Amino acid sequence: MIKKTIQVGLIGFGTVGCGMAEILLQREEEIAGRLGVPLCLAQVADLDIERERPIKIKKSILTTNAHDIIANPKIDIVVELMGGISPARELILDAIAHGKHVVTANKALLAYHGEEIFKAANVAGVEVGFEAAVGGGIPIIRAIKEGLSGDQITDIFGIVNGTSNYILTKMSNEKASFSDVLKEAQVLGYAEADPTLDIGGGDSAHKLAILASLAFGTPVPIKEVYTEGIAQITPMDIAYADQFGYQMKLLAIAKIADGQIEARVHPTMLPKETLLAKVNGVFNAICVVGESVGETLFYGRGAGSAPTGSAVVSDLIDIARKRLTDQQAGAPTIRVPHTGTLSSHRVTLPIRPMEQIESRYYLRLIVEDRPGVLSKVAGVLGQHHISIASVIQDGRKETGAVQLVMMTHRSREKDMQAALKTISESKTVYKPTTLIRVEGT
Amino acid sequence: MIKKTIQVGLIGFGTVGCGMAEILLQREEEIAGRLGVPLCLAQVADLDIERERPIKIKKSILTTNAHDIIANPKIDIVVELMGGISPARELILDAIAHGKHVVTANKALLAYHGEEIFKAANVAGVEVGFEAAVGGGIPIIRAIKEGLSGDQITDIFGIVNGTSNYILTKMSNEKASFSDVLKEAQVLGYAEADPTLDIGGGDSAHKLAILASLAFGTPVPIKEVYTEGIAQITPMDIAYADQFGYQMKLLAIAKIADGQIEARVHPTMLPKETLLAKVNGVFNAICVVGESVGETLFYGRGAGSAPTGSAVVSDLIDIARKRLTDQQAGAPTIRVPHTGTLSSHRVTLPIRPMEQIESRYYLRLIVEDRPGVLSKVAGVLGQHHISIASVIQDGRKETGAVQLVMMTHRSREKDMQAALKTISESKTVYKPTTLIRVEGT
Repeated sequence: MIKKTIQVGLIGFGTVGCGMAEILLQREEEIAGRLGVPLCLAQVADLDIERERPIKIKKSILTTNAHDIIANPKIDIVVELMGGISPARELILDAIAHGKHVVTANKALLAYHGEEIFKAANVAGVEVGFEAAVGGGIPIIRAIKEGLSGDQITDIFGIVNGTSNYILTKMSNEKASFSDVLKEAQVLGYAEADPTLDIGGGDSAHKLAILASLAFGTPVPIKEVYTEGIAQITPMDIAYADQFGYQMKLLAIAKIADGQIEARVHPTMLPKETLLAKVNGVFNAICVVGESVGETLFYGRGAGSAPTGSAVVSDLIDIARKRLTDQQAGAPTIRVPHTGTLSSHRVTLPIRPMEQIESRYYLRLIVEDRPGVLSKVAGVLGQHHISIASVIQDGRKETGAVQLVMMTHRSREKDMQAALKTISESKTVYKPTTLIRVEGT
Repeated sequence: MIKKTIQVGLIGFGTVGCGMAEILLQREEEIAGRLGVPLCLAQVADLDIERERPIKIKKSILTTNAHDIIANPKIDIVVELMGGISPARELILDAIAHGKHVVTANKALLAYHGEEIFKAANVAGVEVGFEAAVGGGIPIIRAIKEGLSGDQITDIFGIVNGTSNYILTKMSNEKASFSDVLKEAQVLGYAEADPTLDIGGGDSAHKLAILASLAFGTPVPIKEVYTEGIAQITPMDIAYADQFGYQMKLLAIAKIADGQIEARVHPTMLPKETLLAKVNGVFNAICVVGESVGETLFYGRGAGSAPTGSAVVSDLIDIARKRLTDQQAGAPTIRVPHTGTLSSHRVTLPIRPMEQIESRYYLRLIVEDRPGVLSKVAGVLGQHHISIASVIQDGRKETGAVQLVMMTHRSREKDMQAALKTISESKTVYKPTTLIRVEGT
């Protein structure tokens, strides 16, 4: 029986859910023009179905029970936009077991349980689309799985959390403190009431684990992704970065080298003239470096109901296109492996421990205002094989103390941590010492 | 019969052909890991099969007759990398008639004969991949056809010709003349012996016609794309642009509004702080604006054997993936319509005549060095409903003449051309008058 429509069930009728529903309703005709048949929103589940929402949906298709959607034999694709690990995980696995295709924007869930979900989907012969999980409306998942499939990706680094980038941009433009900008962002709706995942780097780490796993064909366990947030960044560090020619960004970085994966999220100083340094406000951008293609960059809105909703709909169209050609052919199959590489050909590569990475470093020490302190600090760094590239000691006094700011050449994290430990034990160095990693030449 | 390999035939063993072949040989294992079976280079045709090339290919698979490949029953996908309109068009149509899938990087051919080729492919049930035709290694075709398929694209504008961008970047950095930089670019291999297509804007127009046709679901006849090159750009104009806060770029611009398509290629001043203005050297970048997603940008190397070869291989993998799942299912089908929208749902929208577009303008006039000239010029512009935003008249004298440079507010092209005609008739205005369009706010 040839299908006349593709029926979609939505679990989680929040911001992104409304964005997706609005697109399906508004662009019914254009979407049918891309598919040949309409994509219909057949049923919507949310615990709260009474609340006023920006779009109008027929009451008859609303339910408070997500299982109604999973059990609905008419529904072809289940969209999960409720977020969180549980019960999203159980609902998705249940939908897969019922032979439904799944589209989700749930990066936390995929970072923790992606392997399990993809495995279940492979067994059931259904597809799981997750373009909306990383980079909002930027088609970065497809770019890695398909657009760059002929290449060998060596590096991914990017700004994948709009809230942090908004805060850092604002701090930079207005020389404002982290806490002031955060409060303002919360009032404007750019930061959540509990902003921990965004400003702590956790959300970026989830997204990085997903991207790195696709790019390098290996599982990237989220607990092995080094994660440091932006709460400690001060306007003073941003000003010094500027003086050195750098912009402060929360960067998610993944690399492959010598059969090991590097995956880390931390505040990073980027040379001002790079494109990534110029990505401001709530925008996201991801640099993907391939052996053949060299450097590429993908830029766009990383969040918001319309951009993320648009990414969900592109997954729906993708799955629907495949299914419609399948049914002409006879049997369902999976065209693109969920993780880019076939599960039979995936490897498990070790994640390099953070202490073994190499980077350049920015250090800001508060030291006693007397001669000889720089020489002493430089001496300790030298003993740990760390050489200094430049120093600023411009005497912004804080009760007899001065700021000693330096940029190092490329060094080992392990050496740097050891040196900092020794330095912190000196009586001429006060707390706290600030360390920020530096990327680019 | 389940296929154990996918066999590829290559027509045109030049720079990109070598790049593609090298990737297939070097990444055999990774590619098999994405497909489940190897992609094999089975046969290669070129008029010159004796020349030394950067990679080694078995002599036995070389032929001087492209028809050997088309007639070879083992070959699944024919890659056309010879370029030019004829005989590339005939060979591709012949390959399609033989039931071969086709991958091509031939933007000129697709701009002129894309509709014919896609129609033939639809009839034959074969796929035509052309990711490599626009933006080299940047997966922009897939982004428009699939990644942003849930969106309604309203604007595309970008730097799609690396040679021109290299020349403008170099002119800008070194205050060098167009002809000097062009000569240098030819020596370095960044510009061809006959650079007409690159510097004249023709190559950008081909690529724009392809992108606009996909984005807006309508044919965009190449002869209706207004095309102006960079040969008239002087270091003086680049310096004035800088003074006004702009960077000079050769931009390809397409928009849809009021059911009409705008499609034009011309030198354009872009605000310096935009990402596109910072795309330098041989790099390409394409901004795609969607109603839902807002502004996105795709950046990378727009040419070169490895980036373009990588795009060709991503098309091979895409077609192979679909074919391998088809054969499990039983019958071949086309998943994504060649033009993004099904041919049954495509419309034919009118292309807006150039005189009806609106833009801001930069004007540089060489005028007699005496009072009252500015007022006269401003008067003529005013009569044509054109208001001036700013003026520089800094008296760089050329035998009694001064430069009168101005930026206008948004005006109609028709009004501007009429005003220029009147101005050029004045005895106090010398030749030539320079007009450059300005984008961004």
